[in-house]
Amino acid sequence: MLAVTVSSPGPAEVMSWSETADPSPPGPGEVTLDVAASAVNRADLLQRQGHYPPPTGVSPVMGLECSGRVAATGSGVTGWAVGEAACALLSGGGYAERVVVPVGQLLPVPGGVSLIEAAALPEATCTVWSNVFEVGRLGDAEVFLAHGGAGGIGTTALQVARALRPAARIFTTAGSPAGRARCLELGADEAIDYRTDDFVERVHTGTENAGADVVLDNMGAKYLARNVDVLAADGRLVIIGMQGGRRAELDIAALLGKRGSVHATSLRHRPREQKASVVAGVRTHVWPAIEAGAVRPVIDRVVPIADVAGAHRAMEEGGLIGKIVLAVGG
Amino acid sequence: MLAVTVSSPGPAEVMSWSETADPSPPGPGEVTLDVAASAVNRADLLQRQGHYPPPTGVSPVMGLECSGRVAATGSGVTGWAVGEAACALLSGGGYAERVVVPVGQLLPVPGGVSLIEAAALPEATCTVWSNVFEVGRLGDAEVFLAHGGAGGIGTTALQVARALRPAARIFTTAGSPAGRARCLELGADEAIDYRTDDFVERVHTGTENAGADVVLDNMGAKYLARNVDVLAADGRLVIIGMQGGRRAELDIAALLGKRGSVHATSLRHRPREQKASVVAGVRTHVWPAIEAGAVRPVIDRVVPIADVAGAHRAMEEGGLIGKIVLAVGG
Repeated sequence: MLAVTVSSPGPAEVMSWSETADPSPPGPGEVTLDVAASAVNRADLLQRQGHYPPPTGVSPVMGLECSGRVAATGSGVTGWAVGEAACALLSGGGYAERVVVPVGQLLPVPGGVSLIEAAALPEATCTVWSNVFEVGRLGDAEVFLAHGGAGGIGTTALQVARALRPAARIFTTAGSPAGRARCLELGADEAIDYRTDDFVERVHTGTENAGADVVLDNMGAKYLARNVDVLAADGRLVIIGMQGGRRAELDIAALLGKRGSVHATSLRHRPREQKASVVAGVRTHVWPAIEAGAVRPVIDRVVPIADVAGAHRAMEEGGLIGKIVLAVGG
Repeated sequence: MLAVTVSSPGPAEVMSWSETADPSPPGPGEVTLDVAASAVNRADLLQRQGHYPPPTGVSPVMGLECSGRVAATGSGVTGWAVGEAACALLSGGGYAERVVVPVGQLLPVPGGVSLIEAAALPEATCTVWSNVFEVGRLGDAEVFLAHGGAGGIGTTALQVARALRPAARIFTTAGSPAGRARCLELGADEAIDYRTDDFVERVHTGTENAGADVVLDNMGAKYLARNVDVLAADGRLVIIGMQGGRRAELDIAALLGKRGSVHATSLRHRPREQKASVVAGVRTHVWPAIEAGAVRPVIDRVVPIADVAGAHRAMEEGGLIGKIVLAVGG
């Protein structure tokens, strides 16, 4: 099959769409998909540079999500037939013509979403469901701050929070005027320009100094102190990215004064059962909102996977609104 | 009434047992207790020194727990009669002959425990229940590390964890040989000498490198990095004290690699409804273990409250096993 291979860790140019070995046939409880599309995640850039090796036993090919059609099913697989359309949360291997995936990580393509668009859904919806709702336990009329609101996770977080918690007060940060405008369309009450405004001040002003009950953060060290400052009493800070570094001082007294918590998580290294549990939660809670049109995949552009290098460069340059989808076939 | 008053913030000698104004009569949903005994908590030492002011509206008198008899009930109070024995979680005011307490913070004196001994129960049992079980969600066969195992919280944490999670593997740290021996009697599988041994290494050795699912910490900054190191995958670090300082570097990548969380909490500043909820949980889950004799108050000594200065000095010197109870009357 064809897949994106990496000659050696480095810039986008080290990748090429070239012939490589097919994956092994599906084992018990696994399904092989003929891939229609994959999507670019920030972790892919790190993996390409050699900074984020895949978990043991996982394909060295990049790609944490895809859509496609069932090509073969392993023993014990029920509920999925050959030829059926699906999208999937992957531990790797999505940048390829075929991928093997545990059946618990498959989702149907929701009504009203094309097979290509569906590739943009699994990673963002699973990240948002597991972190904002399962870990962060965002409540009915709580205050939610989503950093990076214009990104792939952010655009999904705003929509899902608005759909599942209509009475929530939703703040987000974004850099460009176009990004902030899009955030407001997607459900944010306020879209804060992090380059000119202090999000701590803005959230406190907008909540009578109560602060944010849940903060979803992709910046890590750079925002840690201010994220603790912006937390409400009993607030939950959920860190899912470290674009602003990995080490920072934590003021334990400030956190204790709020009875706050700092969670740091990723989807990729979770055991298979945990991934299946997250996917089941997404299917139950998020999929109906997609079917109802309340949550849509936000796609900056669709590019042929042969131009994966251009896609990675675009993500590195920033300023995207939503995800980049890589069209593979189908 | 008589109460412990503080002439000005300072060392133990600033306290005296002297005449002061009675508390106001009980308001709706409140009860006045004639205090039989109170107990010393570390927060009292900070409050005496002026470092831990009581929450707004709370008595300036120290004392976060007491036992006694109901002297009067406010409107709407049911289930408690004048003369009945009780112990109570307080926001302050326990170092006195009388104290007013919201009815939701009252607990019956468990069978087999004297009225004086019962003063040592509320703060420790509520702290352990809310932090190890509610926040930390210690599971059936999980690994638990309780720092400061010989202290008032520690001796309770070990017993309650052993009683409610018989299959848990329980580690603790303590400084003295006598303290460590007592920890083993109270339910710890291993009592680590923090002065000579590395608790991270000891817990990893004892768990085939899995680490601790829940860590209960009273040291704060000094232990933060090592507490993150000792966490298992999906582990929860619950910080309830800062005897080792308030600020330390957090390695977010290390936490994220484990999908870990850092919680920092205190009981005292929680709203009344939260306190009532914790007390109700303690009554349901911990009180039966006390009645069954599986959990006992661990009391280093009982001193007359007129010698409160001596009690504070003893706590400052360290090396206690369990709590110091202050006998008031009854």
